[in-house]
Amino acid sequence: MSEPNATGHLPQPSDKTRTDATARLDRLTKPTGSLGRLEDIAVWAAGVQHRCPPEPFSQIHVVVIAGDHGVARAAGTSAYPVEVTAQMVANIVTGGAAVNVLARKIGATVQVIDASVSADYSGLSVPADMSRRRIRPGSGAIDREDAMTEEEADAGLALGQAISRECRTAGADLLVIGDMGIGNTTPAAALIAAATDGDPVEVSGRGTGIDDATWMRKTAAVRDALWRVRNDRDDPAALLRRIGGPDLAVMCGLLLGAAREQLPVVVDGVVVTSAALIAELLEPGCRNWWIAGHRSAEPAHTIALDQLRLAPVLDLGMRLGEGSGALTAIPVIQSAISLLAGMATFESAGVSGGPGD
Amino acid sequence: MSEPNATGHLPQPSDKTRTDATARLDRLTKPTGSLGRLEDIAVWAAGVQHRCPPEPFSQIHVVVIAGDHGVARAAGTSAYPVEVTAQMVANIVTGGAAVNVLARKIGATVQVIDASVSADYSGLSVPADMSRRRIRPGSGAIDREDAMTEEEADAGLALGQAISRECRTAGADLLVIGDMGIGNTTPAAALIAAATDGDPVEVSGRGTGIDDATWMRKTAAVRDALWRVRNDRDDPAALLRRIGGPDLAVMCGLLLGAAREQLPVVVDGVVVTSAALIAELLEPGCRNWWIAGHRSAEPAHTIALDQLRLAPVLDLGMRLGEGSGALTAIPVIQSAISLLAGMATFESAGVSGGPGD
Repeated sequence: MSEPNATGHLPQPSDKTRTDATARLDRLTKPTGSLGRLEDIAVWAAGVQHRCPPEPFSQIHVVVIAGDHGVARAAGTSAYPVEVTAQMVANIVTGGAAVNVLARKIGATVQVIDASVSADYSGLSVPADMSRRRIRPGSGAIDREDAMTEEEADAGLALGQAISRECRTAGADLLVIGDMGIGNTTPAAALIAAATDGDPVEVSGRGTGIDDATWMRKTAAVRDALWRVRNDRDDPAALLRRIGGPDLAVMCGLLLGAAREQLPVVVDGVVVTSAALIAELLEPGCRNWWIAGHRSAEPAHTIALDQLRLAPVLDLGMRLGEGSGALTAIPVIQSAISLLAGMATFESAGVSGGPGD
Repeated sequence: MSEPNATGHLPQPSDKTRTDATARLDRLTKPTGSLGRLEDIAVWAAGVQHRCPPEPFSQIHVVVIAGDHGVARAAGTSAYPVEVTAQMVANIVTGGAAVNVLARKIGATVQVIDASVSADYSGLSVPADMSRRRIRPGSGAIDREDAMTEEEADAGLALGQAISRECRTAGADLLVIGDMGIGNTTPAAALIAAATDGDPVEVSGRGTGIDDATWMRKTAAVRDALWRVRNDRDDPAALLRRIGGPDLAVMCGLLLGAAREQLPVVVDGVVVTSAALIAELLEPGCRNWWIAGHRSAEPAHTIALDQLRLAPVLDLGMRLGEGSGALTAIPVIQSAISLLAGMATFESAGVSGGPGD
């Protein structure tokens, strides 16, 4: 999995500790390869931690990036009214959302960043400075206009990178990036289609649970967005700016920044993975710092994961976002690490059939 | 899922708390159904716990049933020598096996039962009374003789039921049944084929990682075993006795007993699931107390899970046994329960789009 970074600037996980982990796995008291995917996960952890055996991650931090999408309002591509984004930001702030429950379960901390929420939070329980890092309220309707300006896209990427540095400084050793935003699967589907030469009908999913008429509007919006960027297929930054959104730019910056900070990331659903696809195009080799937490019910998610060659840990048909799928996968990742570190070897346990026999 | 028990004797999970759980899920701050399989798991937990919301399981107990198999010695169907079973029993007793590492991770207790190990543990670190409940040493070579006598089969079933009562008395609220036994996937494959009218070539897997020649011997042994029971297809007790094994009888008794004790079980890999298939045939409705922890790499496992209509939580290509797949799945089950119990509702969080809007 570890491979040279094309631009030469990006640090990479350790090949040495990956090799050590593979060798150690074969000495443990189990048939070779019998832990299946858990073995790949343990090797990944050894690589990103630069040590073998790796240790369970102990400071897991979740950053939920919130933003609204002009296309949802203009083209009617979601089942929920746009104001739900701000209401759900407040729900996360007060600890009642799925991401909070799952984070408490594993001792992770949760932070919400308002990248591009359109509402003003009046009447909602959020800190007074909730919007202080907002890039802009909402995004352009990507079926007919750019999601944001170049300055806004740069600001979004910079904000994401700043957050990744803050996370590293605060001692985080594993990052989960989540999304919250009514309509955000529409730009995600458009980005994934643009980056993989996909078809609007294949990439457009049911999102929060839209009906047939809404799905047809969504598919048409994705098709129109793709037509607008027909000459930008080889320019990932232009795709992000024109048919993405400020929230996606922040996620992309966070993913790029985390790789530079050597901070491993559990990638969540279709929205975060669409940003990951752009990040990998901008800086090849980022993906070696990532693990895919789950495969969501959104069809474009599978397309993006395949393109990134990331095999999901879980496949539970989740489609909630917020980092919920990634968080659900983390105990499995920790188990894989504990097995590599804690199992007896054939030699130490006096069991026949090991590599030395 | 909940259904009347055909014999009328078996208690069933609560339909009332299952219905309550489904209704509660739809009031939580998430799109309807967006937690995917986690929603089914939470509903299952509400049913088996007879309460809504359910609580995370707090006394999880693992029973590993160990046994040797005459067919492995006689027909050469395994990659490992038979003495590895006793060596691995000692490894579990001293805490070095995968099952121990995974159980420690979630605070579960582990117990090993010698149902039919053939060795005498000389030189191994096990309690002096390790074999006190042993039904018999090893089993008959099922390709040419019965695995055990009727008395031994009855004793195995009775031992399993006694253990399930002990577990309930000790306060366990969730049971994991694991297997340890060189060659045990051969009788498991034979039982699954016999119970589902399957083909020897389709049910025979690579077990611990056997080569082509060993796989051909294994497949031939399964075919010969199936021929021996060609007139017993409608008699699950005869199948268990003739082509199963004492360890499988104990597992079967444990599964039957747990259902009678209303003790939910996380079913593990192909060996335990083969016993589950027989238990469900002996007493229909048992399966409502079970959840499938994972889908293993063994082809017969998928056939058995399909027949039991159990959808696995994980699909990681594991093939280790010991209860390892079931234990890896438990944090996901606990997360599903926590979400149902801990998330805010649309009303409580003031979020638009709930069922009342």
